[in-house]
Amino acid sequence: MEQRLSMVTLSVQDVAETRRFFEQGLGWKANNFESDDIVFFQTGGSVLAIYSRQALERDLGQAATQSLGAMTIAWNARTESEVDEVFSQAMRAGAISVSRPARAFWGGYSSHVEIPGGHLLEIAYNPFWSIDDAGNVTIPEGT
Amino acid sequence: MEQRLSMVTLSVQDVAETRRFFEQGLGWKANNFESDDIVFFQTGGSVLAIYSRQALERDLGQAATQSLGAMTIAWNARTESEVDEVFSQAMRAGAISVSRPARAFWGGYSSHVEIPGGHLLEIAYNPFWSIDDAGNVTIPEGT
Repeated sequence: MEQRLSMVTLSVQDVAETRRFFEQGLGWKANNFESDDIVFFQTGGSVLAIYSRQALERDLGQAATQSLGAMTIAWNARTESEVDEVFSQAMRAGAISVSRPARAFWGGYSSHVEIPGGHLLEIAYNPFWSIDDAGNVTIPEGT
Repeated sequence: MEQRLSMVTLSVQDVAETRRFFEQGLGWKANNFESDDIVFFQTGGSVLAIYSRQALERDLGQAATQSLGAMTIAWNARTESEVDEVFSQAMRAGAISVSRPARAFWGGYSSHVEIPGGHLLEIAYNPFWSIDDAGNVTIPEGT
């Protein structure tokens, strides 16, 4: 089993609301697949999906419980000032501040917001991880 | 804000248990960073983290509710038979079957398992999405 992930799916009550956050708020571009139940964003070599909770429960044949923080997604900035900028952008786009940008105990600079739909997004700068021109993150060996 | 994700974090009660599932069960290789609270797996251009719920709650300053299905991660196979193989491998590694491999309404072949730690992993074949040699998934334009 190759060591990779193909997709992360955020299950939300209102797909259109969360889609607006990413498209209009953050300037991301969704795939032009037309569905009220799901929207896809290409994120490097994997995909972020926003999926209606009702549809997910139909797939699973069981209830999916709401959560905040049981799983989080993170977006790493290239600099600390970019953390501040993207945090502000997320606020303007309708996110709720959970922890404002601040020095983190692990040596980085980090913030958390709750995005529309009720999931946690960390916006952080990690001085120990490299980010290439394409945005790929690499954990250095031996750290 | 570049359109990408840097990290997906699964918050779990027992980091060692979930780490064993990925390392010993699925054959993945963790970064050799030593901590009881967190473990990192390089997954292409992003990172999968397994993080102790207690530590996450300390970071957030608030409780993180348990969930099953509010967010899911997916691993796409290259063939239907590979879905069967990886599903079986996950079962042997201690996952719980939520939906066995079967034809999905969207035209693919899909299964869901609950991994140790209580998160949902979809194991699927999607004939409409391409996977390159490095494992990167691409959504075709216009679909």
